[in-house]
Amino acid sequence: MNEEIQSASPHAFPQAQIDGVYRAIRERRDVRHFKPGPLEAGQLERFIAAAHNGPSVGLMQPWRFIRIASPALRAQIHQLVDDERKLTAEALGQRAEEFMRLKVEGILACAEVLVVGLIDRRERFVFGRRTMPEMDLASASCAIQNFWLAARAEGIGAGWVSLFDPQRLREVCGMPEGSQPIAVLCVGRVEEFYRAPMLELERWDQRMPVQQILYEDSWGAQQQIV
Amino acid sequence: MNEEIQSASPHAFPQAQIDGVYRAIRERRDVRHFKPGPLEAGQLERFIAAAHNGPSVGLMQPWRFIRIASPALRAQIHQLVDDERKLTAEALGQRAEEFMRLKVEGILACAEVLVVGLIDRRERFVFGRRTMPEMDLASASCAIQNFWLAARAEGIGAGWVSLFDPQRLREVCGMPEGSQPIAVLCVGRVEEFYRAPMLELERWDQRMPVQQILYEDSWGAQQQIV
Repeated sequence: MNEEIQSASPHAFPQAQIDGVYRAIRERRDVRHFKPGPLEAGQLERFIAAAHNGPSVGLMQPWRFIRIASPALRAQIHQLVDDERKLTAEALGQRAEEFMRLKVEGILACAEVLVVGLIDRRERFVFGRRTMPEMDLASASCAIQNFWLAARAEGIGAGWVSLFDPQRLREVCGMPEGSQPIAVLCVGRVEEFYRAPMLELERWDQRMPVQQILYEDSWGAQQQIV
Repeated sequence: MNEEIQSASPHAFPQAQIDGVYRAIRERRDVRHFKPGPLEAGQLERFIAAAHNGPSVGLMQPWRFIRIASPALRAQIHQLVDDERKLTAEALGQRAEEFMRLKVEGILACAEVLVVGLIDRRERFVFGRRTMPEMDLASASCAIQNFWLAARAEGIGAGWVSLFDPQRLREVCGMPEGSQPIAVLCVGRVEEFYRAPMLELERWDQRMPVQQILYEDSWGAQQQIV
């Protein structure tokens, strides 16, 4: 993907900017290993502004970010993630031990922890959600992807942890009924970015060839363009 | 956000690449107005590869992309989106007329239409989904955001349409029971990118100040960093 991209579009970015976008996409990792030290001034603000530039169905902007400043609260969040880690291991059955060897979060080591949640009273928003109310989660996920890519470009690691009981996380963060926590984001400096997704390096699973995810006209019908 | 970004991280990209990432994030639009003409050779492949570089919970890679090559199938998809558009207008009540004046899709005009779906038999994947099975949608949404940003960098517009009855879309695309369509993506050349989100220009809603989406330690508690 590093080849010169020929684009006739008058709206295409200069080559170095295009390279930056593809590089961030390619080199972003779900980070669980952090090294000590705070973010630089301005970084967290830029990443959150990037998230807030995300698309949202009917412009509903369903996302809220809770920055965890209290060490005691961070410890509580770590505890409830660790509890869910054990329950997940049990649910995994024969892969339980293998799962328990994986590092699945970096909550106590990273510079910043953010809890991301969907707002309450979302049923007010109908545009693009009448048949699929879950499009609010889709929007917030795009926002988090923006955050992730911006952080990667600045050399900062981020990880999305979804191992938690939403009700318990809601309680410790004072979230109202009807709101929905979707992520614990760990953000911070890293020694290095994994050269491939960590779960691939650890042989948890493999990435599929792109040909296998692309069909033509009908599910399962192979498409020839890639 | 165009100021020089000082980053001490040895993993930070060069400035022009960082600029590219932030620019794509800032200038990406949910496009409904396309101009005629195909994509260039290689573009769709690059955008899909970018999507496939998305993060996925437990590396499950739940996304599949169906490229719509048949004009008859494209017309069917347009019809079912248009049907849902009318039902949404009814559900919106007093904003129905205002909604019906908006352009909500560009299915017949764009170069490429893709239906994005989540795979069937997702209950096999437990990692990161025991308490929140909807994390598969979150992953696929991040993948679509990658696609969107890559397209923007190359000067190509993309729009995510979620106005459809999932069951009908599943049927016309031959999708198996248990799979879930989440998007009709319209992709193509544009005369121009909207200078702000179209729903903002059309005064459907306003973007919130970033201060309002960021809390500290507790939902609703104002955070001072931005």
